[in-house]
Amino acid sequence: MARPTEFKREEVLERAMQAFWDHGYLGTSMADLVEVTDLRPGSLYAAFGSKEGLFLAALDHYGEATAARLARMLAEAESPLEGIRAHFRQLAADAARPRGRRSCLLVNTVLELSRQNDAIQERVNRHLENIEGLIRGALEEAHASGELARGKDPAALAAFLMVNIWGLRVFAGTAPKPARATAVVDQLLTILD
Amino acid sequence: MARPTEFKREEVLERAMQAFWDHGYLGTSMADLVEVTDLRPGSLYAAFGSKEGLFLAALDHYGEATAARLARMLAEAESPLEGIRAHFRQLAADAARPRGRRSCLLVNTVLELSRQNDAIQERVNRHLENIEGLIRGALEEAHASGELARGKDPAALAAFLMVNIWGLRVFAGTAPKPARATAVVDQLLTILD
Repeated sequence: MARPTEFKREEVLERAMQAFWDHGYLGTSMADLVEVTDLRPGSLYAAFGSKEGLFLAALDHYGEATAARLARMLAEAESPLEGIRAHFRQLAADAARPRGRRSCLLVNTVLELSRQNDAIQERVNRHLENIEGLIRGALEEAHASGELARGKDPAALAAFLMVNIWGLRVFAGTAPKPARATAVVDQLLTILD
Repeated sequence: MARPTEFKREEVLERAMQAFWDHGYLGTSMADLVEVTDLRPGSLYAAFGSKEGLFLAALDHYGEATAARLARMLAEAESPLEGIRAHFRQLAADAARPRGRRSCLLVNTVLELSRQNDAIQERVNRHLENIEGLIRGALEEAHASGELARGKDPAALAAFLMVNIWGLRVFAGTAPKPARATAVVDQLLTILD
């Protein structure tokens, strides 16, 4: 069976992920995937079973990379709240870049497919919950140390910040001006004060 | 030319809008549109030119209905801020209903298509700006009367609230529990206090 080696698997997933991110699930054909991955159709089917199988693997690849990036940003920040602020400032900067119009593969998938496909919704939700867990963890740490005011509820705040991440990803799709993106995030971050 | 009469045009747009909302632009074929509208293909092409033409008309139908509903809610509220609060409580209730998983046609379109089609992005942005104008107007009124604290900036706050509308529409796609939807909106509304 022409199963890709582990090294090649990462490369194949990265390319498939980029294609799905650019064109959506429905807008990407198996022929497109064969072209971008440079594999034979038989090899793709042998390794991933179907277009849906390859999509789920590409979602995992994306979700894990996104969570790893956020975890690194939180770990490198001077404090938990500074880490969260840095993450939202990065989202504002991304929203104002032309490349930002691709938004986020997880958010795009929620809106394109999750209402029609429970396996995909379950997978997207798992990645979103993982990201929310990182944010909630940082808020709990800030709460315990007194950096976050005692009256604030870390869990409710984490759920609210997730909604704002999604909103900022849609915002990116509207191609906003940088000043507008910064103003929105400044407004948002007042909720942490 | 078998152009639908004005009465029929509204009905055709409503049905086409529902199909696009359920399945997305790429997921809805001209054959699907012929079926749901009960028109002959020649009549559809004569009236709307193309699938894209029918989609733009369906977007207008949706955007105008959405703005009219918000304007009515703001007009009927006891005060401008109460109107905005009512709108967000409605979004939370919608997010927790199974039907809410369809999210919002404008938001779905931003993520599915706007980065690939400037005519569609321009049209979606026009409707979103119209909705933002209604919210900004209510905030300016509240600011002038002192209902909104003097230190708040109505324009920045309106941009921020739009991002939260989009985030709540994505949230709806994740099929949240009602208590979680309420907690998020309660957290959001503290920004108006």
